[in-house]
Amino acid sequence: MSTSVSTVRVDLGNRTYSISIGSGILDAPESYLGLPPSSACAIVSNTTVAPLFADRLAAALCRIYAKVHVILLPDGEVFKEWTTLQRIFDELLAAKCDRSTTIFALGGGVIGDLAGFAAACYMRGVPYIHVPTTLLAQVDSAVGGKTAINHPRGKNMIGVFNQPTRVIVDVDTLDNLPQRELIAGLAEVIKYGAIVDDEFLVWTDRNLSALIARDKAASIEGVRRSCEIKARIVAEDEREAGRRAILNFGHTFAHAIEAGVGYGGWLHGEAVGCGMLMAADLSARAGLVDRAQVERLARVVREAGLPTRPPPLGVDRFLELMRGDKKAVAGEMKFVLLDGPGSTVVKFVESGMVAATVESFTAGAGPLRQP
Amino acid sequence: MSTSVSTVRVDLGNRTYSISIGSGILDAPESYLGLPPSSACAIVSNTTVAPLFADRLAAALCRIYAKVHVILLPDGEVFKEWTTLQRIFDELLAAKCDRSTTIFALGGGVIGDLAGFAAACYMRGVPYIHVPTTLLAQVDSAVGGKTAINHPRGKNMIGVFNQPTRVIVDVDTLDNLPQRELIAGLAEVIKYGAIVDDEFLVWTDRNLSALIARDKAASIEGVRRSCEIKARIVAEDEREAGRRAILNFGHTFAHAIEAGVGYGGWLHGEAVGCGMLMAADLSARAGLVDRAQVERLARVVREAGLPTRPPPLGVDRFLELMRGDKKAVAGEMKFVLLDGPGSTVVKFVESGMVAATVESFTAGAGPLRQP
Repeated sequence: MSTSVSTVRVDLGNRTYSISIGSGILDAPESYLGLPPSSACAIVSNTTVAPLFADRLAAALCRIYAKVHVILLPDGEVFKEWTTLQRIFDELLAAKCDRSTTIFALGGGVIGDLAGFAAACYMRGVPYIHVPTTLLAQVDSAVGGKTAINHPRGKNMIGVFNQPTRVIVDVDTLDNLPQRELIAGLAEVIKYGAIVDDEFLVWTDRNLSALIARDKAASIEGVRRSCEIKARIVAEDEREAGRRAILNFGHTFAHAIEAGVGYGGWLHGEAVGCGMLMAADLSARAGLVDRAQVERLARVVREAGLPTRPPPLGVDRFLELMRGDKKAVAGEMKFVLLDGPGSTVVKFVESGMVAATVESFTAGAGPLRQP
Repeated sequence: MSTSVSTVRVDLGNRTYSISIGSGILDAPESYLGLPPSSACAIVSNTTVAPLFADRLAAALCRIYAKVHVILLPDGEVFKEWTTLQRIFDELLAAKCDRSTTIFALGGGVIGDLAGFAAACYMRGVPYIHVPTTLLAQVDSAVGGKTAINHPRGKNMIGVFNQPTRVIVDVDTLDNLPQRELIAGLAEVIKYGAIVDDEFLVWTDRNLSALIARDKAASIEGVRRSCEIKARIVAEDEREAGRRAILNFGHTFAHAIEAGVGYGGWLHGEAVGCGMLMAADLSARAGLVDRAQVERLARVVREAGLPTRPPPLGVDRFLELMRGDKKAVAGEMKFVLLDGPGSTVVKFVESGMVAATVESFTAGAGPLRQP
């Protein structure tokens, strides 16, 4: 086990939990000490991640639980829906898991969403521990307790807030992550700096190559600071009634991109990378920031290797997709906008201005599918 | 609107809510004042209850919400499963309901379970108000926030704790309730007295005929005291980690009866009526109470018109069904037992003693289906 484990506390009253971040901590039994006692646990993973890490996690958990069940799901966002959730319930019930059974989510955001939602609903709630294996999951979905499945009418429409009991981030898992997915995860790291911590944006900018090279120290630091920022925001507003909305910076544009190309065409982080630039452009149009700040963010996003142009959806279709986003309140549209370095504001924006942003970006539209 | 409205507060920190109990309050607009602001609401009801009350409820809600959607579900426990839940989500999304849309559950326990679960999961949670129309729902499911759907492997296996924003109990709705269902609801009223409040059991005993005749004052008083008792217990233990378990008095036996005859054969309250007597018998066998206390409870249950004998399932099958109950902890069986008038204890019981109780009751078994 690494000698240096960083810990981030997510302060949520009696739902407070901690995130351990380190190198080589996935299969260290001490990572799992102090969890609620139970005779059984279930590892929920997918057919891509399980061959890499499930045996190692199971070996550590065997020392704590008399029974370790493994529930294998197919890999992909397309499986983030009810029948997959039902499969988890079926297997938990077939294995006679009870209310004390602890669920371990081993995988990226989709596995976290499915296992976290299943844990919230199985016998009205069992403990769950998230072991995220993608950068995106480590810096984003590991903090805040959002779980969901998709509905034919929209992404993440059905879900609950369910805080994990603990999160274990082993940055060694990033070694197995395809480069494209690593870079997609960087979009959220860049986002944290952009919205609330300009100093962290400067740090991210300086450490881009180390992060892309999966340098352990840089990865731990990047994940730690990202989790700290998100934890602070979530602690202020667990159920997204206000402040937490700033985490959606770039996301209204991103969701339109994702929905427009079909899920799987662009990765979420790629859409967020481009979406942030569109939101920054809208911020400048609204007179909240100068063009230099927009250009600076664009440079970091570009240097990270993230797309800076949306796919060729056409302005009308793009706007229509944005209006379908669930952040709409009674038909109106709300945006998270920059109003200075590391500073953000939530504002309703006149639709002509939004159209101008979409138009200026789609004029030089990017590819329908990312390479 | 009735001049006398009783209010019971369910103290759960920031999830505290109130239950208004009165006669004629269902369609009084003032019953719905002070709810979270929203432009739309949705009434979730079934094809039996909606024709009786949905128009009246909608008329009151039209004064508060610009749009009132009605979502009609088929009636019956057999529909308490995923596809019905999915139908609620489909209709909410089709009606473009957003995160502020308030859901009203108009019906009995099944509607409350479905609408409450849907409200917890729709866009990760929208407010919901319960308007229970059966005695069972008014004295039991209206308090405590348990929601669930059934799974082929067991009842209420999938669900969440989701506290309503408010509960409106109009005892006039009992006028439309079939006699058999009213009597089934009385089982839970009797239970509250038996487990924690002997004085209330005496009151219930004395007021049985008034309750069965749906006398307004008696109904309001019976519902109020039942809700107060349940609210007190739930406030001590919202997520059923300990104390709340005593509410399951008689329920391990009852679940075996319900599962054994197939859902619909016996009403839940009927099974609880008989289950309480079996649990009381087990308490006497365990030396915790004398036979006189068992006989006294049996008399009240019998005089209420509830069954006092289980269906002819056979001892082995009955025991097997009990072991499948989800209150099992790691294979062992736990019981809520009486240890005095209005006093209860949770205990593990030796299986021979349980078998003796089941044997003595099945010797004079009742009918497979209740009339």
